[in-house]
Amino acid sequence: MSSSFPVPNLANPFSYETYLFDADGVLWRANETVPGAVTFVKELLEMGKRVYIVTNNSTNTTEEYVKKVTKLGFETLHEANIISPNVVMVDYLRRHPHYTEKGRVYAIASGGVVDTLHKELGVECIGGGPDHVPLNSTFLNSVDVSKEVSAVVVGYDPHFSYNKIMKAANYLLNPSCGFFITNEDATFPGSRKDIVVPGTGSITASIRAVALPRQPIVFGKPGEKLQNYLRESLDLKPEQTIMLGDRLDTDISFGNRLGVATCWMRTGVHKEDDVKRAIEAKDTDLIPTYTFSFEEFYAN
Amino acid sequence: MSSSFPVPNLANPFSYETYLFDADGVLWRANETVPGAVTFVKELLEMGKRVYIVTNNSTNTTEEYVKKVTKLGFETLHEANIISPNVVMVDYLRRHPHYTEKGRVYAIASGGVVDTLHKELGVECIGGGPDHVPLNSTFLNSVDVSKEVSAVVVGYDPHFSYNKIMKAANYLLNPSCGFFITNEDATFPGSRKDIVVPGTGSITASIRAVALPRQPIVFGKPGEKLQNYLRESLDLKPEQTIMLGDRLDTDISFGNRLGVATCWMRTGVHKEDDVKRAIEAKDTDLIPTYTFSFEEFYAN
Repeated sequence: MSSSFPVPNLANPFSYETYLFDADGVLWRANETVPGAVTFVKELLEMGKRVYIVTNNSTNTTEEYVKKVTKLGFETLHEANIISPNVVMVDYLRRHPHYTEKGRVYAIASGGVVDTLHKELGVECIGGGPDHVPLNSTFLNSVDVSKEVSAVVVGYDPHFSYNKIMKAANYLLNPSCGFFITNEDATFPGSRKDIVVPGTGSITASIRAVALPRQPIVFGKPGEKLQNYLRESLDLKPEQTIMLGDRLDTDISFGNRLGVATCWMRTGVHKEDDVKRAIEAKDTDLIPTYTFSFEEFYAN
Repeated sequence: MSSSFPVPNLANPFSYETYLFDADGVLWRANETVPGAVTFVKELLEMGKRVYIVTNNSTNTTEEYVKKVTKLGFETLHEANIISPNVVMVDYLRRHPHYTEKGRVYAIASGGVVDTLHKELGVECIGGGPDHVPLNSTFLNSVDVSKEVSAVVVGYDPHFSYNKIMKAANYLLNPSCGFFITNEDATFPGSRKDIVVPGTGSITASIRAVALPRQPIVFGKPGEKLQNYLRESLDLKPEQTIMLGDRLDTDISFGNRLGVATCWMRTGVHKEDDVKRAIEAKDTDLIPTYTFSFEEFYAN
Protein backbone atom coordinates (compact mmCIF):
# COMPACT_ATOMS: atom_id res chain seq x y z
CA MET A 1 0.00 0.00 0.00
CA SER A 2 1.29 3.46 -0.92
CA SER A 3 2.24 5.34 2.23
CA SER A 4 0.60 8.49 0.86
CA PHE A 5 -2.83 6.84 0.84
CA PRO A 6 -4.94 8.94 3.19
CA VAL A 7 -7.08 6.16 4.69
CA PRO A 8 -5.61 4.21 7.65
CA ASN A 9 -5.15 0.46 7.57
CA LEU A 10 -7.57 -1.63 9.65
CA ALA A 11 -5.16 -2.47 12.45
CA ASN A 12 -7.35 -4.83 14.52
CA PRO A 13 -9.34 -6.81 11.99
CA PHE A 14 -10.87 -9.11 14.62
CA SER A 15 -12.10 -6.44 17.04
CA TYR A 16 -15.72 -6.26 15.82
CA GLU A 17 -18.69 -8.43 16.68
CA THR A 18 -20.58 -8.20 13.38
CA TYR A 19 -19.06 -8.23 9.88
CA LEU A 20 -21.04 -7.14 6.84
CA PHE A 21 -19.26 -8.12 3.64
CA ASP A 22 -19.97 -7.08 0.11
CA ALA A 23 -19.28 -10.12 -2.05
CA ASP A 24 -18.20 -9.50 -5.64
CA GLY A 25 -14.96 -7.50 -5.62
CA VAL A 26 -14.36 -8.26 -1.92
CA LEU A 27 -14.63 -12.01 -1.28
CA TRP A 28 -14.44 -13.02 -4.93
CA ARG A 29 -14.27 -11.68 -8.45
CA ALA A 30 -16.54 -13.52 -10.89
CA ASN A 31 -15.54 -17.17 -10.23
CA GLU A 32 -12.25 -16.68 -8.37
CA THR A 33 -11.90 -16.04 -4.66
CA VAL A 34 -9.91 -13.04 -3.50
CA PRO A 35 -6.70 -14.37 -1.87
CA GLY A 36 -7.10 -14.72 1.91
CA ALA A 37 -10.88 -14.20 1.91
CA VAL A 38 -11.83 -17.82 2.66
CA THR A 39 -9.40 -18.04 5.58
CA PHE A 40 -10.48 -14.69 7.02
CA VAL A 41 -14.19 -15.55 6.98
CA LYS A 42 -13.51 -18.98 8.47
CA GLU A 43 -11.47 -17.49 11.31
CA LEU A 44 -14.19 -14.94 12.06
CA LEU A 45 -16.82 -17.67 12.36
CA GLU A 46 -14.54 -19.84 14.53
CA MET A 47 -14.20 -16.88 16.88
CA GLY A 48 -18.00 -16.69 17.13
CA LYS A 49 -18.28 -13.45 15.16
CA ARG A 50 -21.46 -12.73 13.21
CA VAL A 51 -20.79 -12.71 9.46
CA TYR A 52 -23.21 -11.58 6.75
CA ILE A 53 -22.81 -11.21 3.03
CA VAL A 54 -24.77 -8.08 2.19
CA THR A 55 -24.95 -8.21 -1.58
CA ASN A 56 -26.77 -6.21 -4.23
CA ASN A 57 -26.76 -9.29 -6.44
CA SER A 58 -30.33 -10.47 -6.84
CA THR A 59 -29.77 -12.82 -9.76
CA ASN A 60 -29.70 -15.86 -7.44
CA THR A 61 -32.03 -17.13 -4.74
CA THR A 62 -30.31 -17.35 -1.33
CA GLU A 63 -30.28 -21.14 -1.76
CA GLU A 64 -28.42 -20.84 -5.07
CA TYR A 65 -26.18 -18.23 -3.56
CA VAL A 66 -25.10 -20.57 -0.78
CA LYS A 67 -24.29 -23.26 -3.37
CA LYS A 68 -22.13 -20.77 -5.26
CA VAL A 69 -20.42 -19.60 -2.07
CA THR A 70 -19.79 -23.17 -0.94
CA LYS A 71 -18.29 -24.09 -4.30
CA LEU A 72 -15.93 -21.12 -3.98
CA GLY A 73 -14.73 -22.46 -0.62
CA PHE A 74 -16.88 -20.52 1.89
CA GLU A 75 -18.30 -23.74 3.33
CA THR A 76 -19.11 -22.14 6.66
CA LEU A 77 -21.77 -19.79 5.25
CA HIS A 78 -25.46 -20.72 5.21
CA GLU A 79 -28.70 -19.16 3.95
CA ALA A 80 -29.10 -17.08 7.11
CA ASN A 81 -25.75 -15.44 6.36
CA ILE A 82 -26.91 -14.11 2.97
CA ILE A 83 -28.76 -10.79 2.78
CA SER A 84 -29.71 -9.75 -0.77
CA PRO A 85 -32.29 -7.32 -2.18
CA ASN A 86 -34.53 -10.36 -2.68
CA VAL A 87 -34.52 -11.06 1.07
CA VAL A 88 -35.39 -7.45 1.91
CA MET A 89 -38.05 -7.29 -0.83
CA VAL A 90 -39.79 -10.44 0.43
CA ASP A 91 -39.77 -9.07 3.96
CA TYR A 92 -41.27 -5.78 2.71
CA LEU A 93 -43.93 -7.46 0.58
CA ARG A 94 -45.01 -9.72 3.45
CA ARG A 95 -45.68 -6.59 5.48
CA HIS A 96 -47.45 -4.83 2.56
CA PRO A 97 -49.62 -7.60 1.10
CA HIS A 98 -51.58 -5.35 -1.30
CA TYR A 99 -48.53 -5.31 -3.58
CA THR A 100 -48.92 -9.02 -4.18
CA GLU A 101 -52.70 -9.37 -4.01
CA LYS A 102 -53.12 -9.84 -7.77
CA GLY A 103 -50.65 -12.74 -7.56
CA ARG A 104 -48.70 -11.26 -10.45
CA VAL A 105 -45.97 -8.66 -10.97
CA TYR A 106 -44.26 -7.32 -14.09
CA ALA A 107 -40.58 -8.16 -13.61
CA ILE A 108 -37.71 -6.79 -15.67
CA ALA A 109 -35.42 -9.23 -13.92
CA SER A 110 -33.93 -12.68 -14.09
CA GLY A 111 -33.93 -15.98 -12.19
CA GLY A 112 -33.23 -14.95 -8.60
CA VAL A 113 -36.02 -12.39 -8.40
CA VAL A 114 -38.51 -14.56 -10.29
CA ASP A 115 -37.81 -17.73 -8.31
CA THR A 116 -37.73 -15.95 -4.93
CA LEU A 117 -41.06 -14.19 -5.45
CA HIS A 118 -42.64 -17.42 -6.58
CA LYS A 119 -41.19 -19.64 -3.85
CA GLU A 120 -41.59 -17.25 -0.93
CA LEU A 121 -44.82 -15.48 -1.82
CA GLY A 122 -46.48 -17.52 -4.58
CA VAL A 123 -46.28 -14.54 -6.93
CA GLU A 124 -45.99 -15.05 -10.69
CA CYS A 125 -43.54 -12.82 -12.57
CA ILE A 126 -44.49 -11.94 -16.12
CA GLY A 127 -42.16 -10.16 -18.53
CA GLY A 128 -39.10 -12.41 -18.28
CA GLY A 129 -36.89 -13.39 -21.20
CA PRO A 130 -36.64 -11.77 -24.62
CA ASP A 131 -39.37 -9.27 -25.57
CA HIS A 132 -38.22 -7.25 -28.53
CA VAL A 133 -39.82 -4.79 -30.88
CA PRO A 134 -40.51 -6.62 -34.15
CA LEU A 135 -38.93 -5.06 -37.22
CA ASN A 136 -41.23 -2.61 -39.03
CA SER A 137 -44.05 -3.09 -36.55
CA THR A 138 -46.63 -0.59 -35.38
CA PHE A 139 -45.83 -1.57 -31.79
CA LEU A 140 -46.13 2.01 -30.53
CA ASN A 141 -49.89 1.73 -30.50
CA SER A 142 -50.23 -1.89 -29.55
CA VAL A 143 -48.40 -2.35 -26.25
CA ASP A 144 -50.33 -4.95 -24.31
CA VAL A 145 -50.59 -4.27 -20.60
CA SER A 146 -54.03 -5.77 -20.18
CA LYS A 147 -52.82 -8.47 -17.80
CA GLU A 148 -53.15 -6.78 -14.42
CA VAL A 149 -50.15 -6.68 -12.10
CA SER A 150 -49.71 -5.47 -8.51
CA ALA A 151 -46.19 -4.14 -9.05
CA VAL A 152 -43.31 -3.51 -11.43
CA VAL A 153 -40.05 -5.04 -10.19
CA VAL A 154 -36.79 -3.99 -11.84
CA GLY A 155 -33.53 -5.87 -11.43
CA TYR A 156 -30.76 -7.25 -13.60
CA ASP A 157 -32.07 -8.46 -16.94
CA PRO A 158 -29.76 -9.24 -19.88
CA HIS A 159 -32.88 -9.25 -22.08
CA PHE A 160 -33.72 -5.66 -21.19
CA SER A 161 -35.23 -3.87 -24.19
CA TYR A 162 -37.22 -0.86 -25.35
CA ASN A 163 -40.45 -2.87 -25.26
CA LYS A 164 -39.87 -3.57 -21.57
CA ILE A 165 -39.40 0.14 -20.83
CA MET A 166 -42.71 0.80 -22.54
CA LYS A 167 -44.58 -1.90 -20.62
CA ALA A 168 -43.15 -0.77 -17.27
CA ALA A 169 -44.06 2.86 -18.02
CA ASN A 170 -47.65 1.94 -18.83
CA TYR A 171 -48.13 -0.33 -15.82
CA LEU A 172 -46.76 2.44 -13.61
CA LEU A 173 -49.46 4.85 -14.81
CA ASN A 174 -51.63 3.08 -12.25
CA PRO A 175 -50.75 4.74 -8.93
CA SER A 176 -51.63 1.62 -6.94
CA CYS A 177 -49.07 -0.43 -8.87
CA GLY A 178 -45.91 -0.84 -6.77
CA PHE A 179 -42.53 0.28 -8.15
CA PHE A 180 -39.62 -1.74 -6.78
CA ILE A 181 -35.94 -1.82 -7.66
CA THR A 182 -33.43 -4.39 -6.43
CA ASN A 183 -30.32 -2.20 -6.64
CA GLU A 184 -28.72 0.60 -8.63
CA ASP A 185 -25.12 -0.49 -9.22
CA ALA A 186 -24.27 0.95 -12.62
CA THR A 187 -21.67 -1.72 -13.39
CA PHE A 188 -20.37 -4.94 -11.85
CA PRO A 189 -16.96 -6.56 -11.91
CA GLY A 190 -16.89 -9.21 -14.60
CA SER A 191 -14.32 -11.92 -15.06
CA ARG A 192 -12.49 -9.85 -17.68
CA LYS A 193 -11.03 -6.67 -16.25
CA ASP A 194 -10.99 -4.90 -19.62
CA ILE A 195 -14.75 -5.24 -20.18
CA VAL A 196 -17.36 -3.08 -18.44
CA VAL A 197 -20.48 -5.06 -17.58
CA PRO A 198 -23.55 -2.84 -17.13
CA GLY A 199 -25.36 -3.50 -13.87
CA THR A 200 -28.93 -3.08 -12.73
CA GLY A 201 -28.38 0.67 -12.28
CA SER A 202 -28.16 1.19 -16.03
CA ILE A 203 -31.52 -0.57 -16.45
CA THR A 204 -33.27 1.12 -13.54
CA ALA A 205 -32.11 4.57 -14.75
CA SER A 206 -34.28 4.07 -17.85
CA ILE A 207 -37.35 3.05 -15.91
CA ARG A 208 -36.88 5.85 -13.38
CA ALA A 209 -36.64 8.40 -16.23
CA VAL A 210 -39.84 7.28 -17.90
CA ALA A 211 -41.81 6.84 -14.65
CA LEU A 212 -41.20 10.33 -13.24
CA PRO A 213 -42.49 11.82 -10.96
CA ARG A 214 -43.00 8.38 -9.38
CA GLN A 215 -40.17 7.25 -7.13
CA PRO A 216 -39.32 3.58 -6.66
CA ILE A 217 -38.52 1.72 -3.46
CA VAL A 218 -34.94 0.43 -3.66
CA PHE A 219 -34.07 -2.73 -1.70
CA GLY A 220 -30.30 -2.81 -2.20
CA LYS A 221 -27.35 -0.84 -0.87
CA PRO A 222 -27.15 1.99 0.03
CA GLY A 223 -30.95 2.37 0.46
CA GLU A 224 -32.89 2.91 3.65
CA LYS A 225 -34.99 -0.23 3.34
CA LEU A 226 -31.90 -2.42 3.67
CA GLN A 227 -30.54 -0.28 6.53
CA ASN A 228 -33.82 -0.70 8.41
CA TYR A 229 -33.93 -4.41 7.69
CA LEU A 230 -30.46 -4.94 9.17
CA ARG A 231 -31.14 -2.77 12.21
CA GLU A 232 -34.34 -4.63 13.00
CA SER A 233 -33.62 -8.21 12.02
CA LEU A 234 -29.98 -8.39 13.18
CA ASP A 235 -30.29 -6.17 16.25
CA LEU A 236 -27.08 -4.40 15.18
CA LYS A 237 -24.80 -2.63 17.62
CA PRO A 238 -23.27 0.02 15.32
CA GLU A 239 -20.08 0.49 17.34
CA GLN A 240 -19.39 -3.25 17.13
CA THR A 241 -20.15 -3.56 13.40
CA ILE A 242 -18.06 -3.05 10.28
CA MET A 243 -19.04 -2.97 6.59
CA LEU A 244 -16.34 -4.14 4.14
CA GLY A 245 -16.78 -3.29 0.45
CA ASP A 246 -15.12 -2.25 -2.80
CA ARG A 247 -17.65 0.32 -4.05
CA LEU A 248 -17.82 3.76 -2.46
CA ASP A 249 -21.29 4.64 -3.76
CA THR A 250 -22.94 1.46 -2.52
CA ASP A 251 -20.88 -0.29 0.16
CA ILE A 252 -19.07 2.57 1.89
CA SER A 253 -22.00 4.94 1.58
CA PHE A 254 -24.25 2.21 2.97
CA GLY A 255 -22.02 1.55 5.97
CA ASN A 256 -21.66 5.26 6.69
CA ARG A 257 -25.42 5.76 6.60
CA LEU A 258 -25.90 2.74 8.82
CA GLY A 259 -23.53 4.38 11.30
CA VAL A 260 -21.00 1.54 11.40
CA ALA A 261 -17.26 1.44 10.68
CA THR A 262 -16.48 1.11 6.97
CA CYS A 263 -13.56 -0.59 5.30
CA TRP A 264 -12.64 -0.12 1.65
CA MET A 265 -11.18 -3.20 -0.08
CA ARG A 266 -9.03 -2.58 -3.12
CA THR A 267 -9.98 -5.71 -5.06
CA GLY A 268 -13.10 -4.47 -6.84
CA VAL A 269 -14.64 -1.74 -8.95
CA HIS A 270 -13.38 1.42 -7.26
CA LYS A 271 -9.71 2.32 -7.14
CA GLU A 272 -7.42 4.34 -4.85
CA ASP A 273 -7.99 7.37 -7.07
CA ASP A 274 -11.74 7.16 -6.43
CA VAL A 275 -11.13 7.22 -2.67
CA LYS A 276 -8.75 10.16 -3.02
CA ARG A 277 -11.28 12.04 -5.14
CA ALA A 278 -13.99 11.48 -2.50
CA ILE A 279 -11.63 12.82 0.19
CA GLU A 280 -10.69 15.87 -1.91
CA ALA A 281 -14.37 16.56 -2.61
CA LYS A 282 -15.06 16.14 1.14
CA ASP A 283 -17.89 13.77 0.23
CA THR A 284 -18.11 12.25 3.70
CA ASP A 285 -20.79 9.80 2.58
CA LEU A 286 -18.20 8.04 0.40
CA ILE A 287 -15.09 8.17 2.60
CA PRO A 288 -14.19 4.87 4.30
CA THR A 289 -12.99 4.65 7.90
CA TYR A 290 -10.30 2.08 7.01
CA THR A 291 -8.75 0.09 4.23
CA PHE A 292 -7.68 -3.54 4.46
CA SER A 293 -6.28 -6.36 2.37
CA PHE A 294 -6.68 -10.05 3.26
CA GLU A 295 -3.64 -10.87 1.16
CA GLU A 296 -1.29 -8.41 2.89
CA PHE A 297 -2.65 -9.43 6.31
CA TYR A 298 -1.82 -13.09 5.82
CA ALA A 299 1.49 -12.33 4.12
CA ASN A 300 2.76 -10.61 7.27
CA MET B 1 -59.31 28.54 -20.28
CA SER B 2 -59.90 28.54 -16.54
CA SER B 3 -59.76 32.09 -15.18
CA SER B 4 -57.73 30.87 -12.22
CA PHE B 5 -54.85 29.82 -14.46
CA PRO B 6 -51.89 31.94 -13.36
CA VAL B 7 -50.20 32.41 -16.77
CA PRO B 8 -51.48 35.28 -18.98
CA ASN B 9 -52.79 34.67 -22.47
CA LEU B 10 -50.55 35.76 -25.36
CA ALA B 11 -52.53 38.88 -26.32
CA ASN B 12 -50.58 39.94 -29.43
CA PRO B 13 -49.61 36.73 -31.17
CA PHE B 14 -48.19 38.52 -34.24
CA SER B 15 -45.94 40.99 -32.42
CA TYR B 16 -42.68 39.00 -32.70
CA GLU B 17 -40.18 38.77 -35.51
CA THR B 18 -38.97 35.19 -34.96
CA TYR B 19 -41.11 32.20 -33.96
CA LEU B 20 -39.57 29.00 -32.64
CA PHE B 21 -42.11 26.19 -32.54
CA ASP B 22 -41.86 22.83 -30.94
CA ALA B 23 -43.64 20.41 -33.28
CA ASP B 24 -45.22 17.33 -31.71
CA GLY B 25 -47.81 18.45 -29.17
CA VAL B 26 -47.88 22.00 -30.58
CA LEU B 27 -48.37 21.91 -34.36
CA TRP B 28 -49.50 18.32 -34.51
CA ARG B 29 -50.03 15.20 -32.43
CA ALA B 30 -48.77 12.02 -34.12
CA ASN B 31 -50.43 12.29 -37.56
CA GLU B 32 -53.08 14.92 -36.87
CA THR B 33 -52.55 18.66 -36.98
CA VAL B 34 -53.53 20.73 -33.98
CA PRO B 35 -56.58 22.82 -34.99
CA GLY B 36 -55.56 26.31 -36.19
CA ALA B 37 -51.85 25.50 -36.41
CA VAL B 38 -51.63 25.39 -40.23
CA THR B 39 -53.43 28.73 -40.59
CA PHE B 40 -51.35 30.40 -37.89
CA VAL B 41 -48.00 29.36 -39.41
CA LYS B 42 -49.16 30.37 -42.89
CA GLU B 43 -50.21 33.81 -41.68
CA LEU B 44 -46.89 34.33 -39.91
CA LEU B 45 -44.97 33.54 -43.10
CA GLU B 46 -47.21 35.77 -45.20
CA MET B 47 -46.39 38.61 -42.80
CA GLY B 48 -42.68 38.00 -43.40
CA LYS B 49 -42.04 36.58 -39.93
CA ARG B 50 -39.22 34.07 -39.45
CA VAL B 51 -40.59 30.64 -38.48
CA TYR B 52 -38.54 27.66 -37.29
CA ILE B 53 -39.56 24.28 -36.07
CA VAL B 54 -37.13 23.52 -33.26
CA THR B 55 -37.72 19.86 -32.62
CA ASN B 56 -36.05 17.22 -30.48
CA ASN B 57 -37.19 14.58 -32.96
CA SER B 58 -34.15 13.17 -34.71
CA THR B 59 -35.79 10.11 -36.23
CA ASN B 60 -36.10 11.85 -39.62
CA THR B 61 -33.66 13.69 -41.84
CA THR B 62 -34.70 17.31 -42.46
CA GLU B 63 -35.69 16.28 -45.99
CA GLU B 64 -38.03 13.60 -44.63
CA TYR B 65 -39.27 16.00 -42.02
CA VAL B 66 -40.31 18.53 -44.68
CA LYS B 67 -42.20 15.79 -46.53
CA LYS B 68 -44.05 14.91 -43.32
CA VAL B 69 -44.78 18.54 -42.56
CA THR B 70 -45.99 19.21 -46.11
CA LYS B 71 -48.29 16.18 -45.98
CA LEU B 72 -49.78 17.54 -42.76
CA GLY B 73 -50.59 20.83 -44.52
CA PHE B 74 -47.60 23.03 -43.60
CA GLU B 75 -46.71 23.52 -47.27
CA THR B 76 -44.92 26.80 -46.61
CA LEU B 77 -42.11 25.22 -44.57
CA HIS B 78 -38.82 24.14 -46.15
CA GLU B 79 -35.62 22.45 -45.00
CA ALA B 80 -34.14 25.72 -43.76
CA ASN B 81 -37.10 26.07 -41.39
CA ILE B 82 -36.33 22.78 -39.61
CA ILE B 83 -33.84 22.70 -36.74
CA SER B 84 -33.39 19.26 -35.18
CA PRO B 85 -30.64 17.71 -33.04
CA ASN B 86 -29.30 16.20 -36.28
CA VAL B 87 -28.74 19.67 -37.75
CA VAL B 88 -26.92 20.86 -34.62
CA MET B 89 -24.87 17.65 -34.40
CA VAL B 90 -23.71 17.92 -38.01
CA ASP B 91 -22.72 21.55 -37.43
CA TYR B 92 -20.78 20.55 -34.32
CA LEU B 93 -19.04 17.60 -35.97
CA ARG B 94 -17.97 19.71 -38.94
CA ARG B 95 -16.21 22.01 -36.50
CA HIS B 96 -14.69 19.09 -34.54
CA PRO B 97 -13.53 16.73 -37.30
CA HIS B 98 -11.60 14.35 -35.00
CA TYR B 99 -14.94 12.90 -33.90
CA THR B 100 -15.55 11.61 -37.42
CA GLU B 101 -12.00 10.84 -38.49
CA LYS B 102 -12.45 7.06 -38.23
CA GLY B 103 -15.43 7.38 -40.58
CA ARG B 104 -17.51 5.30 -38.19
CA VAL B 105 -19.61 5.87 -35.06
CA TYR B 106 -21.54 3.53 -32.79
CA ALA B 107 -25.14 4.70 -33.00
CA ILE B 108 -27.97 3.62 -30.70
CA ALA B 109 -30.38 5.43 -32.96
CA SER B 110 -32.63 5.01 -35.96
CA GLY B 111 -33.03 6.30 -39.53
CA GLY B 112 -32.76 10.07 -39.18
CA VAL B 113 -29.47 10.04 -37.30
CA VAL B 114 -27.96 7.28 -39.45
CA ASP B 115 -28.98 8.83 -42.77
CA THR B 116 -28.00 12.36 -41.77
CA LEU B 117 -24.50 11.39 -40.61
CA HIS B 118 -23.98 9.39 -43.77
CA LYS B 119 -25.34 11.97 -46.18
CA GLU B 120 -23.83 15.09 -44.59
CA LEU B 121 -20.52 13.76 -43.31
CA GLY B 122 -19.94 10.40 -45.01
CA VAL B 123 -19.91 8.69 -41.61
CA GLU B 124 -21.02 5.07 -41.24
CA CYS B 125 -23.21 4.22 -38.24
CA ILE B 126 -22.77 0.75 -36.82
CA GLY B 127 -25.06 -0.72 -34.18
CA GLY B 128 -28.46 -0.14 -35.79
CA GLY B 129 -31.36 -2.58 -35.69
CA PRO B 130 -31.87 -5.55 -33.38
CA ASP B 131 -28.87 -6.66 -31.29
CA HIS B 132 -30.06 -8.89 -28.52
CA VAL B 133 -28.42 -11.10 -25.96
CA PRO B 134 -28.82 -14.69 -27.16
CA LEU B 135 -30.55 -17.03 -24.72
CA ASN B 136 -28.14 -18.87 -22.41
CA SER B 137 -25.09 -17.23 -23.94
CA THR B 138 -21.80 -16.30 -22.29
CA PHE B 139 -22.11 -12.85 -23.85
CA LEU B 140 -20.76 -11.12 -20.73
CA ASN B 141 -17.24 -12.01 -21.71
CA SER B 142 -17.56 -11.80 -25.45
CA VAL B 143 -18.78 -8.28 -26.24
CA ASP B 144 -17.17 -7.31 -29.52
CA VAL B 145 -16.05 -3.69 -29.69
CA SER B 146 -13.03 -4.35 -31.87
CA LYS B 147 -14.34 -2.22 -34.73
CA GLU B 148 -12.98 1.21 -33.89
CA VAL B 149 -15.38 4.15 -33.71
CA SER B 150 -14.83 7.88 -33.22
CA ALA B 151 -17.98 8.42 -31.19
CA VAL B 152 -21.05 6.92 -29.53
CA VAL B 153 -24.27 8.61 -30.64
CA VAL B 154 -27.45 7.96 -28.66
CA GLY B 155 -30.92 8.80 -29.93
CA TYR B 156 -34.29 7.14 -30.27
CA ASP B 157 -33.98 3.43 -30.97
CA PRO B 158 -36.91 1.03 -30.65
CA HIS B 159 -34.37 -1.81 -30.78
CA PHE B 160 -32.57 -0.55 -27.70
CA SER B 161 -31.29 -3.47 -25.63
CA TYR B 162 -28.90 -4.56 -22.88
CA ASN B 163 -26.27 -5.56 -25.44
CA LYS B 164 -26.28 -2.01 -26.78
CA ILE B 165 -25.73 -0.57 -23.30
CA MET B 166 -22.74 -2.87 -22.93
CA LYS B 167 -21.23 -1.91 -26.26
CA ALA B 168 -21.68 1.81 -25.63
CA ALA B 169 -20.12 1.49 -22.16
CA ASN B 170 -17.06 -0.27 -23.56
CA TYR B 171 -16.54 2.12 -26.47
CA LEU B 172 -16.79 5.00 -24.00
CA LEU B 173 -13.89 3.63 -21.95
CA ASN B 174 -11.72 5.28 -24.61
CA PRO B 175 -11.54 8.94 -23.55
CA SER B 176 -11.05 10.12 -27.14
CA CYS B 177 -14.34 8.52 -28.21
CA GLY B 178 -17.06 11.22 -28.44
CA PHE B 179 -20.28 10.86 -26.43
CA PHE B 180 -23.25 12.52 -28.11
CA ILE B 181 -26.96 12.52 -27.29
CA THR B 182 -29.71 13.85 -29.54
CA ASN B 183 -32.21 14.73 -26.81
CA GLU B 184 -33.47 13.67 -23.40
CA ASP B 185 -37.26 13.78 -23.64
CA ALA B 186 -38.40 10.95 -21.38
CA THR B 187 -41.64 10.39 -23.28
CA PHE B 188 -43.32 11.63 -26.43
CA PRO B 189 -46.96 12.10 -27.31
CA GLY B 190 -48.19 9.10 -29.25
CA SER B 191 -51.34 8.80 -31.26
CA ARG B 192 -53.10 7.07 -28.38
CA LYS B 193 -53.48 9.31 -25.34
CA ASP B 194 -53.75 6.37 -22.94
CA ILE B 195 -50.35 4.89 -23.87
CA VAL B 196 -47.03 6.31 -22.66
CA VAL B 197 -44.35 6.08 -25.34
CA PRO B 198 -40.83 6.17 -23.90
CA GLY B 199 -38.63 8.76 -25.57
CA THR B 200 -34.91 9.09 -26.09
CA GLY B 201 -34.49 10.27 -22.50
CA SER B 202 -35.29 6.81 -21.17
CA ILE B 203 -32.58 5.35 -23.40
CA THR B 204 -29.94 7.99 -22.72
CA ALA B 205 -30.50 7.69 -18.95
CA SER B 206 -29.14 4.13 -19.18
CA ILE B 207 -26.08 5.10 -21.15
CA ARG B 208 -25.38 8.10 -18.90
CA ALA B 209 -25.57 5.85 -15.81
CA VAL B 210 -23.10 3.31 -17.15
CA ALA B 211 -20.70 5.90 -18.63
CA LEU B 212 -20.19 7.96 -15.45
CA PRO B 213 -18.17 10.08 -14.76
CA ARG B 214 -18.17 10.92 -18.49
CA GLN B 215 -20.72 13.54 -19.51
CA PRO B 216 -22.29 13.58 -22.96
CA ILE B 217 -22.86 16.53 -25.27
CA VAL B 218 -26.61 16.95 -25.79
CA PHE B 219 -27.79 18.51 -29.07
CA GLY B 220 -31.51 18.91 -28.34
CA LYS B 221 -33.59 21.19 -26.16
CA PRO B 222 -32.95 22.56 -23.58
CA GLY B 223 -29.16 22.14 -24.03
CA GLU B 224 -26.55 24.84 -24.56
CA LYS B 225 -25.34 23.52 -27.90
CA LEU B 226 -28.73 24.21 -29.49
CA GLN B 227 -28.97 27.61 -27.80
CA ASN B 228 -25.57 28.57 -29.22
CA TYR B 229 -26.47 27.24 -32.65
CA LEU B 230 -29.61 29.39 -32.82
CA ARG B 231 -27.88 32.49 -31.50
CA GLU B 232 -25.10 32.19 -34.05
CA SER B 233 -26.79 30.83 -37.15
CA LEU B 234 -30.08 32.76 -36.88
CA ASP B 235 -28.68 35.99 -35.43
CA LEU B 236 -31.55 36.00 -32.91
CA LYS B 237 -32.83 39.17 -31.30
CA PRO B 238 -34.13 37.76 -28.00
CA GLU B 239 -36.66 40.55 -27.36
CA GLN B 240 -38.23 39.87 -30.76
CA THR B 241 -38.30 36.09 -30.42
CA ILE B 242 -40.78 33.67 -28.88
CA MET B 243 -40.56 29.93 -28.20
CA LEU B 244 -43.87 28.02 -28.28
CA GLY B 245 -43.96 24.53 -26.79
CA ASP B 246 -45.91 21.97 -24.78
CA ARG B 247 -43.15 20.61 -22.52
CA LEU B 248 -41.90 22.66 -19.58
CA ASP B 249 -38.64 20.76 -19.12
CA THR B 250 -37.57 21.01 -22.74
CA ASP B 251 -39.41 23.79 -24.61
CA ILE B 252 -40.15 26.34 -21.90
CA SER B 253 -36.86 25.74 -20.10
CA PHE B 254 -35.08 26.08 -23.45
CA GLY B 255 -36.76 29.39 -24.30
CA ASN B 256 -36.13 30.76 -20.82
CA ARG B 257 -32.43 29.87 -21.02
CA LEU B 258 -32.25 31.40 -24.50
CA GLY B 259 -33.65 34.60 -23.01
CA VAL B 260 -36.72 34.80 -25.26
CA ALA B 261 -40.44 34.98 -24.49
CA THR B 262 -41.97 31.55 -23.88
CA CYS B 263 -45.47 30.35 -24.59
CA TRP B 264 -46.94 27.17 -23.19
CA MET B 265 -49.38 25.35 -25.51
CA ARG B 266 -51.87 23.03 -23.87
CA THR B 267 -52.06 20.43 -26.63
CA GLY B 268 -49.13 18.22 -25.67
CA VAL B 269 -47.46 16.28 -22.89
CA HIS B 270 -47.60 18.72 -19.98
CA LYS B 271 -50.85 19.85 -18.44
CA GLU B 272 -52.13 22.91 -16.56
CA ASP B 273 -51.33 21.15 -13.29
CA ASP B 274 -47.69 20.84 -14.32
CA VAL B 275 -47.52 24.59 -14.95
CA LYS B 276 -49.19 25.30 -11.60
CA ARG B 277 -46.74 22.98 -9.84
CA ALA B 278 -43.78 24.80 -11.44
CA ILE B 279 -45.19 28.13 -10.27
CA GLU B 280 -45.79 26.85 -6.73
CA ALA B 281 -42.26 25.43 -6.62
CA LYS B 282 -40.96 28.79 -7.95
CA ASP B 283 -39.00 26.85 -10.55
CA THR B 284 -38.47 29.89 -12.80
CA ASP B 285 -36.70 27.78 -15.42
CA LEU B 286 -39.99 26.01 -16.15
CA ILE B 287 -42.50 28.87 -15.90
CA PRO B 288 -43.79 30.16 -19.26
CA THR B 289 -44.29 33.86 -20.02
CA TYR B 290 -47.62 33.19 -21.78
CA THR B 291 -50.10 30.58 -22.80
CA PHE B 292 -51.92 30.46 -26.13
CA SER B 293 -54.31 28.30 -28.12
CA PHE B 294 -54.62 28.45 -31.92
CA GLU B 295 -58.10 27.02 -31.70
CA GLU B 296 -59.42 29.63 -29.27
CA PHE B 297 -57.71 32.42 -31.22
CA TYR B 298 -59.46 31.56 -34.46
CA ALA B 299 -62.77 30.82 -32.73
CA ASN B 300 -62.93 34.42 -31.51
